[in-house]
Amino acid sequence: MKIIVIGASGTIGSAVVDLLSERHTVVRVARTAGDYHADLTNPDSIRSLYEKVAPFDAVVSCAGSARFKPLEALTDDDFTASLSNKLMGQVNLVRLGQRYIQDGGSFTLTSGVLANEPMHGSAAISLVNAGLEGFARAAALELLPRKIRVNVVSPPWVSETLVAMGKEASGGMPAAEVAKAYVESVENRSKDGEVLDARKFA
Amino acid sequence: MKIIVIGASGTIGSAVVDLLSERHTVVRVARTAGDYHADLTNPDSIRSLYEKVAPFDAVVSCAGSARFKPLEALTDDDFTASLSNKLMGQVNLVRLGQRYIQDGGSFTLTSGVLANEPMHGSAAISLVNAGLEGFARAAALELLPRKIRVNVVSPPWVSETLVAMGKEASGGMPAAEVAKAYVESVENRSKDGEVLDARKFA
Ligand SMILES: NC(=O)c1ccc[n+]([C@@H]2O[C@H](COP(=O)([O-])OP(=O)(O)OC[C@H]3O[C@@H](n4cnc5c(N)ncnc54)[C@H](OP(=O)(O)O)[C@@H]3O)[C@@H](O)[C@H]2O)c1
Ligand SMILES: NC(=O)c1ccc[n+]([C@@H]2O[C@H](COP(=O)([O-])OP(=O)(O)OC[C@H]3O[C@@H](n4cnc5c(N)ncnc54)[C@H](OP(=O)(O)O)[C@@H]3O)[C@@H](O)[C@H]2O)c1
Repeated sequence: MKIIVIGASGTIGSAVVDLLSERHTVVRVARTAGDYHADLTNPDSIRSLYEKVAPFDAVVSCAGSARFKPLEALTDDDFTASLSNKLMGQVNLVRLGQRYIQDGGSFTLTSGVLANEPMHGSAAISLVNAGLEGFARAAALELLPRKIRVNVVSPPWVSETLVAMGKEASGGMPAAEVAKAYVESVENRSKDGEVLDARKFA
Repeated sequence: MKIIVIGASGTIGSAVVDLLSERHTVVRVARTAGDYHADLTNPDSIRSLYEKVAPFDAVVSCAGSARFKPLEALTDDDFTASLSNKLMGQVNLVRLGQRYIQDGGSFTLTSGVLANEPMHGSAAISLVNAGLEGFARAAALELLPRKIRVNVVSPPWVSETLVAMGKEASGGMPAAEVAKAYVESVENRSKDGEVLDARKFA
């Protein structure tokens, strides 16, 4: 398969690229590194990416940011930025990508366990993650006639991210393990409209 | 208790007002009818409502619209309107209301079963409903120190709405039954951060 990975240079994305490259052709994308550049928040750059890379079989997104702040401190701008980046950026990967992706292909997006297991400071992220999962379940239904699947991988805290934050790696899951859920989403045709909890694929 | 009901003149809202009025003081709000006017999409009008009505014990929202269209037909404007009305409008009821609501009070918002049970055409609504539920779970955690609760009622199709659409009433649940879930959210102090499936309270 020819697979586009957005966020290919990131903590999770680079582990996903490593695993998928073992048996697929991977096109690595990010804003500043990789085979092609695109910005999730810029629909024209996504469209232009798809035009250059088509035909392709799968899109995997390991990108998207949302603001982490106490509810009292979250501003209108924090919500707007979170909605337009991690949520609508990934929604647009599907909306714009459906015209270019091969029948039988798949989209795999990234949410996070804060969708259902919130913590202090996660209100905007929990909204975005849960909203993305709701969108994917619905979009999957509509793309079924072309056998195009839409799934979401929900990662827990990643060990490498915790270490970068000065915390214990043992509180998280190594990126190489999280990456297995993305491979499952891309390769296992039984998954459609599903949220894959990465903790179940280690 | 003194309870603000937003969308008080609507199909669900008027049934909720009927039930709550039996033993509480209800302040009825909508854009064009009721004791006070406010528009979910206008933060200034929400702030002004709260200033006029405070102190109060509970806010119940039975309002909020989102666009129902096939994925291919949903425009950028459809997503923007859905996010700013049903999603951010209700998020803002909590964000702005936390400064005015009494300790021990509660917010009850409205999503819908399309959050988890999508149908063809529900991509924007499923996103909005699921996102609202994710937000509520997280916001509930942060308001816990003041014993302020945040719940979401998830209604199925309402019989009266189906009839207005020219469909069979039997495919839905009467508004008077749906309203029971709102009463449960407001009166039952054990509910916090929960999604109350209205089908379970008939
Ligand atoms: N790490 C965790 O603990 C964790 C846990 C749960 C969920 N997640 C989610 O998993 C995803 C990836 O996380 P990560 O920790 O691997 O992130 P990361 O290490 O910061 O990497 C992000 C990747 O995405 C690219 N990127 C950033 N903004 C972009 C944009 N606007 N358009 C296109 N590409 C963009 C980055 O490269 P450029 O900067 O060059 O664009 C990089 O390749 C995020 O959605 C995150 O919320 C992470
Ligand atoms: N009915 C169903 O089958 C069903 C099923 C699942 C979920 N829901 C959800 O339940 C909620 C209520 O549905 P409903 O059928 O009862 O709606 P409805 O009959 O259309 O009533 C809506 C109510 O909200 C008010 N309203 C509308 N827009 C508003 C705004 N921007 N700001 C403040 N108030 C506004 C309306 O009065 P004004 O026009 O005067 O403002 C009216 O009081 C919605 O969120 C809907 O998505 C409904």
